[in-house]
Amino acid sequence: MTNCSIARTMDIVGSRSAMLIMREALLGTRRFDDFVHRVGVGEPAMATRLKDLVAAGLLERTPYREPGQRTRYEYRLTRKGRELLPVVTALRTWGDTWAADKTGPPVLASHRGCGRPVRAVLRCDGGHDVDDGDTDLTAGPGLIRNG
Amino acid sequence: MTNCSIARTMDIVGSRSAMLIMREALLGTRRFDDFVHRVGVGEPAMATRLKDLVAAGLLERTPYREPGQRTRYEYRLTRKGRELLPVVTALRTWGDTWAADKTGPPVLASHRGCGRPVRAVLRCDGGHDVDDGDTDLTAGPGLIRNG
Repeated sequence: MTNCSIARTMDIVGSRSAMLIMREALLGTRRFDDFVHRVGVGEPAMATRLKDLVAAGLLERTPYREPGQRTRYEYRLTRKGRELLPVVTALRTWGDTWAADKTGPPVLASHRGCGRPVRAVLRCDGGHDVDDGDTDLTAGPGLIRNG
Repeated sequence: MTNCSIARTMDIVGSRSAMLIMREALLGTRRFDDFVHRVGVGEPAMATRLKDLVAAGLLERTPYREPGQRTRYEYRLTRKGRELLPVVTALRTWGDTWAADKTGPPVLASHRGCGRPVRAVLRCDGGHDVDDGDTDLTAGPGLIRNG
């Protein structure tokens, strides 16, 4: 197996429906029927996808019970799942710019407090903005050279 | 069609191989044989993927010719393709944290000049860091309400 963090991430959330489930979870969706309705995937496929995302540790299946009803389960984000926010935000930012139809973006994400648009940007741990082309890539400890 | 910028982006680059081709293009790969070798996809599948990415406007097919050889084509990033860098970086950042094997990350991305790790973070256009949960989502002009 290629040791590539991008490939490994795509193996987990690299399908349209998995990413849209994570979008919904990040927007606060927890219940099976809401996922089905909001993602637009049939129930059997949704059950499989949710099971996979639980197995991968991105969602947690938790029982809940409303008065007079049987126990049901909801799907809550784990920390591992919540940390996909920059991925989902970067996909949204790109899509708003390059793939939106002429009506414009469907959802506006703004910073609570200042109200300005939120996007995913590159930054280094020293606190500097990183421009396009300003990144050095070097071999890390997990590099497997295969030619 | 659902008007979701994330769904639209996934429709274009939401497959493992498409994303790995874009990873390679962002790393500087241009030639067909190098894409085949570095992404690990067979030639017919690679030809199809590259054609799709050219049709989507992420790559540009440009002729080149080495002395004594026939004209060949290379694939260069367009601006639309180059702007996927935050997506690819966010996928890498997440994968390094949550999906790397115990040998550690295969590639280290560091800021030229200061040497510190580069990652994708959320920021607003007012220049503020945006913490998890600090984003307000409101309906944009392209929202289609379907229930």
